[in-house]
Amino acid sequence: MNEHALPPYARARQPRRARYDEDTINDILDYGLVGHVGFIADGRPMVVPMAYARWGQTIYLHGASKARIVAMHKDGDPISMTVTLLEGIVAARSGFHHSMNYRAATVHGTTRLVSDPGETEQALKLITEHLLPLRWNEVRPMHDKERKATGVIALEIEAASAKIRQAPPADDPEDHDLPIWAGVIPIVTALAAPVGDGKTPGEVPPPPSIHLARKKFA
Amino acid sequence: MNEHALPPYARARQPRRARYDEDTINDILDYGLVGHVGFIADGRPMVVPMAYARWGQTIYLHGASKARIVAMHKDGDPISMTVTLLEGIVAARSGFHHSMNYRAATVHGTTRLVSDPGETEQALKLITEHLLPLRWNEVRPMHDKERKATGVIALEIEAASAKIRQAPPADDPEDHDLPIWAGVIPIVTALAAPVGDGKTPGEVPPPPSIHLARKKFA
Repeated sequence: MNEHALPPYARARQPRRARYDEDTINDILDYGLVGHVGFIADGRPMVVPMAYARWGQTIYLHGASKARIVAMHKDGDPISMTVTLLEGIVAARSGFHHSMNYRAATVHGTTRLVSDPGETEQALKLITEHLLPLRWNEVRPMHDKERKATGVIALEIEAASAKIRQAPPADDPEDHDLPIWAGVIPIVTALAAPVGDGKTPGEVPPPPSIHLARKKFA
Repeated sequence: MNEHALPPYARARQPRRARYDEDTINDILDYGLVGHVGFIADGRPMVVPMAYARWGQTIYLHGASKARIVAMHKDGDPISMTVTLLEGIVAARSGFHHSMNYRAATVHGTTRLVSDPGETEQALKLITEHLLPLRWNEVRPMHDKERKATGVIALEIEAASAKIRQAPPADDPEDHDLPIWAGVIPIVTALAAPVGDGKTPGEVPPPPSIHLARKKFA
């Protein structure tokens, strides 16, 4: 996407860390465990952590039918989602240059309540398999009452950007001689060994979805 | 805080996972690496990942003076912040019961631009030491031009709530006999061994702040 084609609210005010190419943005969106979804309710900025999935230029979200984001939804409402991958704490020689290493993507768009049963099922499959690849066909089919209790919201992406910092401290050169340790403390996020709930009769080992997830988010 | 004293936008619509006691909320706020800050700009819901610190019922945020949240700020603007600690992916026997284990805290309030130099310095120290305890006195004092280039925003907390899920899958009992593995895949976040930038003359080992951070966020 061309930065200058973006509306002002979607453009970085500090261009040094900004990126606008689709591959960079999609890579962040596709590897996040959770999205922080922003919407406005009663004139207030709401931020809700949600599971999600990307399908082309659409982000699918789901919630209980009575969840605020579903129940109070109107098609065309402005909405955004930010996915943040933390990579390190940057410890500098001055307080000022302390920072974090991270990749973050923000998408802005409008909402659409998904009503087509085919798209609903496809969206729920995508959201489940964003975290657990191939899981959908490992589990039992959905009941009708479950479908009714679930609302799916599509966020149609109109503008997207990424912010990336992946570097050592940016200390002033004259501070390098100070006897102060500076560097990066990496932040590591990973999936640990799965813990079964012990309710399945017999010995059923964790299926491929679990292994694929641990590989994806390693 | 009494749930019924809260404004509607700060009350959970699905009370099962909601918590309103201050200790639970503060514990989440004090152990998050990053907050997702929500504000409204040009009628759009913005969500920005930010470093932060809590001091009583105030959350301090900082940004470059020209950052949107600082430059476009007006005292009294509504603002929120959500801190999410992800703990696991919940794999159930049905798509419907898939979920995540997490603790999330959301605070709502209004903004105040911090102008008092003493409060500014104190806020910057708190934000630095939220991630790296005791770091402030390990580094060189702040320059005047650095103070001028930094904006500090106080979010005065008016309402707060937490949402917590920490449990195995909540499958329908009749699904327990299906030959499907179900359980939790723990999500682990930790700080790895620090990586110095190699610019400090001689051998300067990582100082206490780094070890305290690795303990805090273990």
